[in-house]
Amino acid sequence: MPSIFTKIINGDIPCYKIAEDEDNFAFLDINPNAKGHTLCVPKKEVDRIMDLDEDAYMKLMSFSRKVGQAIEKSVPCERVGMTVIGLEVPHVHVHLIPLHSMKNATFQHKEKLTAIEFEEVAEQIRDAIK
Amino acid sequence: MPSIFTKIINGDIPCYKIAEDEDNFAFLDINPNAKGHTLCVPKKEVDRIMDLDEDAYMKLMSFSRKVGQAIEKSVPCERVGMTVIGLEVPHVHVHLIPLHSMKNATFQHKEKLTAIEFEEVAEQIRDAIK
Repeated sequence: MPSIFTKIINGDIPCYKIAEDEDNFAFLDINPNAKGHTLCVPKKEVDRIMDLDEDAYMKLMSFSRKVGQAIEKSVPCERVGMTVIGLEVPHVHVHLIPLHSMKNATFQHKEKLTAIEFEEVAEQIRDAIK
Repeated sequence: MPSIFTKIINGDIPCYKIAEDEDNFAFLDINPNAKGHTLCVPKKEVDRIMDLDEDAYMKLMSFSRKVGQAIEKSVPCERVGMTVIGLEVPHVHVHLIPLHSMKNATFQHKEKLTAIEFEEVAEQIRDAIK
């Protein structure tokens, strides 16, 4: 069965899309640690990041850097953090999180956004990638 | 003034060293989220990960993958997670954390190890890199 992220990538589940290239896809985390929290996901479904082959891993990291730099340019924050955990969805994903304080990095505090706020921040980040 | 990580890299502060190449250095986090928690640090002192130039960033990520795979091979865990925060030490560092549960990823729970336990796990990881 395809992972929830594969369903998002295939358009079977809606998302606030940020960016896409041949190998990777980025969209807003719907349960964000902070406004602008984005997930970068390889299109190929692999569970553990350390099991990605070198080429897929390096492409994901390069893609995540481009998206992360766009977030840092467009979303007010102290810096953008990166986290890979993967205990919940067995499909590699890099969390890019606008950090204001340690609170945004612990995954213990979540921010509620309206659909309009999600769409606004997605558009800001997309504009910064161009 | 050099960062605490530069002092470690230069040997002015002792560490449990894991690996080193021309551009990067890895050692055990002395206040670990879990046994085997390792930091990968570029020798060049840059504060924010998104400010690393592309070449330095890609080399750090490649280095972190090699060390992360060695940790996954040598330290019992569900998987190895990666986290970049950087709010405390203004010198880029990738946390590689053996994850057993979400508890190890939150930075809220720390594990106490003896010097012997640190040395043992460092040796296990070093052996797995060879």
